[in-house]
Amino acid sequence: MGKKIFLGLVGFGTIGTGIVKLLQENEELIQKRLGARLVIKKIADIDIDTPRIVSVDRNILTTDVNEILEDPEIPIVIELIGGYEHARSFILDAMRKKKHVVTANKALLAIHGNEIFTVADEEEVNIGFEASVGGTIPVIRTLKESLVANNINSIAGIMNGTSNYILTKMTEEKRPFEDVLKEAQDLGFAEADPTYDIEGIDTAHKLTLTLSLSYGKRVNMQDIYMEGISKISLQDIEFAKELGYNIKLLAIAIQRENAIEARIHPTMIPFDHLLANVSGNFNAFHFIGDASGSVFLYGQGAGMMPTASAVVSDLVDIARDMLKGVWRRVPLRSFKKEYIDDIKLIPMDDIATNYYFRFSALDRPGVLSKISGILGSRNISIASVIQKGRQVDGAGAVPVVMTTHEAREKDVQMALKEIDELDVVGGKTILIRIEDDRLK
Amino acid sequence: MGKKIFLGLVGFGTIGTGIVKLLQENEELIQKRLGARLVIKKIADIDIDTPRIVSVDRNILTTDVNEILEDPEIPIVIELIGGYEHARSFILDAMRKKKHVVTANKALLAIHGNEIFTVADEEEVNIGFEASVGGTIPVIRTLKESLVANNINSIAGIMNGTSNYILTKMTEEKRPFEDVLKEAQDLGFAEADPTYDIEGIDTAHKLTLTLSLSYGKRVNMQDIYMEGISKISLQDIEFAKELGYNIKLLAIAIQRENAIEARIHPTMIPFDHLLANVSGNFNAFHFIGDASGSVFLYGQGAGMMPTASAVVSDLVDIARDMLKGVWRRVPLRSFKKEYIDDIKLIPMDDIATNYYFRFSALDRPGVLSKISGILGSRNISIASVIQKGRQVDGAGAVPVVMTTHEAREKDVQMALKEIDELDVVGGKTILIRIEDDRLK
Repeated sequence: MGKKIFLGLVGFGTIGTGIVKLLQENEELIQKRLGARLVIKKIADIDIDTPRIVSVDRNILTTDVNEILEDPEIPIVIELIGGYEHARSFILDAMRKKKHVVTANKALLAIHGNEIFTVADEEEVNIGFEASVGGTIPVIRTLKESLVANNINSIAGIMNGTSNYILTKMTEEKRPFEDVLKEAQDLGFAEADPTYDIEGIDTAHKLTLTLSLSYGKRVNMQDIYMEGISKISLQDIEFAKELGYNIKLLAIAIQRENAIEARIHPTMIPFDHLLANVSGNFNAFHFIGDASGSVFLYGQGAGMMPTASAVVSDLVDIARDMLKGVWRRVPLRSFKKEYIDDIKLIPMDDIATNYYFRFSALDRPGVLSKISGILGSRNISIASVIQKGRQVDGAGAVPVVMTTHEAREKDVQMALKEIDELDVVGGKTILIRIEDDRLK
Repeated sequence: MGKKIFLGLVGFGTIGTGIVKLLQENEELIQKRLGARLVIKKIADIDIDTPRIVSVDRNILTTDVNEILEDPEIPIVIELIGGYEHARSFILDAMRKKKHVVTANKALLAIHGNEIFTVADEEEVNIGFEASVGGTIPVIRTLKESLVANNINSIAGIMNGTSNYILTKMTEEKRPFEDVLKEAQDLGFAEADPTYDIEGIDTAHKLTLTLSLSYGKRVNMQDIYMEGISKISLQDIEFAKELGYNIKLLAIAIQRENAIEARIHPTMIPFDHLLANVSGNFNAFHFIGDASGSVFLYGQGAGMMPTASAVVSDLVDIARDMLKGVWRRVPLRSFKKEYIDDIKLIPMDDIATNYYFRFSALDRPGVLSKISGILGSRNISIASVIQKGRQVDGAGAVPVVMTTHEAREKDVQMALKEIDELDVVGGKTILIRIEDDRLK
């Protein structure tokens, strides 16, 4: 029944199994859309003995990745090794052998993308990585194709399902961070070492790639300001609700005159923004293009079948090129390679946004006037204050919440340093940034 | 500076002007992404004298569409004539001359799509129509490429901005339908004759195309059940809120065993569904793929620049093919043409969903028992009842609201016919369908 295109799969874990399952179950559907069959010719994994939920011919299993690399009948490989070094060298080897690559490895592309994309250009092969950002959500295709005529004014995304799951549970069930994290680990949603997810590193990988595609730039992930959710307390979630906000871990980028503002941190978003309504382990991306206006995309950012769906969409894309005898119609990083240069990021000190502060005020006269005096002297203007009676916490302090009008980060940091040194303040002030209208 | 690809634009109205503006303002950006310049060589319109907000060389303006059709240097034409007959014959003529076509004309494609797509196949040209469904939202690219490996389990969309604007204003400002419609007309959001928008016809055009792409089928729009928003009252919006729902005009399609259920009608959706939070003139599409799970896309469904953004994305797509010397890598209707056949739709009588009824009960003993008796005899099981005291309306009737568990449309229609004939019922019962979990 028509043409076959052979694939080599490296990594037969959850996602690899999902891809095999999807290619088996929807084989006829894919054939009707592509006009050819996608056939997995070899699967390499260190473990080829443990049974998977799909059945495959034992003869296609191998522990030797070279069987894929050396097979001239395999024009497309799927890299699902994960991590950095093995994945990197496999991808480079495959490209040197003129094989196209599909990968879901955001960490690798965020860190070694410049090298990998350069070799892909040299070898005239394609790299599909739709699954690496936002899982099943068509983020990369939307940026490279649908919004091709747009300057991207801003990006705001919930790019990590685990931290969104934790924040959602904390908000809906009023349970503390540690408790929900433990549950997520027991359910397998969170890793034993959850650092990547909860401290914003996974989000930074994805923002790095998103920035690169949006602006056609090389981005060093280390330059992006990053703050995770491990310090978010129930108390702040409750105050946020009272103020009309949900707290989400957002990746934010805003195009300024000649540079890009990019940052990752817990953010208060008004209830009526779509991002505030993204619950559980879902991801979402909100782009504002200069012509398109708001474009909001939502779906599963991870998981076996959603990720497999994105990987297969890349396989079909490359196969469609092959069937027409061409390769890579769309530039890897959205811009032709001769226009790719280094991104200019605005230092975090220079960003301006709205802020939420929770002060631990000792119950003494004059505390409010001292705090607001310091804020005023730094040009930080107060938008609202909440002080609930005089309930003293364990440390003998009363929580006082303030929100600000737009203020400069550096002024805020200096003001808080000064405030935290006051003898009427009993602990470190909590700071959470607020996005009201900038992302609309 | 590199290659040029010439374009012919027919129709220099709002959208046409937006396209010229976008190609002018973002010329360099598009060139950096495409690697070539998109240059409008001729613009045809019956009115070439009225100034537009963009300045163009007068020499490229013509009232004679043949100047574009006969120009061998123009490989891509943009059809913005609108309506049926002129647009249809222009597109057919252009394709016969081997020109690729980009259009935003959903009405034309919904009604004459089969003919147009067939000629495109014969002439080996491409038709870009991303702007025709959901304006700037990447609906078509997502269905044809991102979800290529998925069976589409369900589709739910807010596909008409005008009716969503009206329902939003009614809900938020508690103003009656006629009042908000008048305002929308004054503001230019609604046409003088608003029938297309408010009676669901525009939505039906878009659902027809969406169904065609999702399932690779020929669809007759006339076969789709269609009900507009002109009978939605403030009273029903208020009762809906009390029950936890917003009312939206939804296009719904659900894949059943061997056929598709497709329908357009005002629908109550739970507050926590993303579709319930789509406000104003925005559009949104919620697809559930068998592998991807939920994918939700949102943006401007119309308007000058959002539509221009989608049209230019199609121009770039075709230009990318041309630069590689190929044409149409992706089938027009998502499936290779040899697999396209006629859709099988489930008759409206046979669908099953939840219902909201508002009865005009005359204030007499036994009315509730008579109504619920008839519902019970038709296997319609009541989920909740609201009766607010005994406030009698102008017709001497008390509104009684009931919601049902899943029931069959035919049973419901027969029960309501019987109920409306009761001497204790003072007027026609209002029926609004509810979607709870089916679209999640």
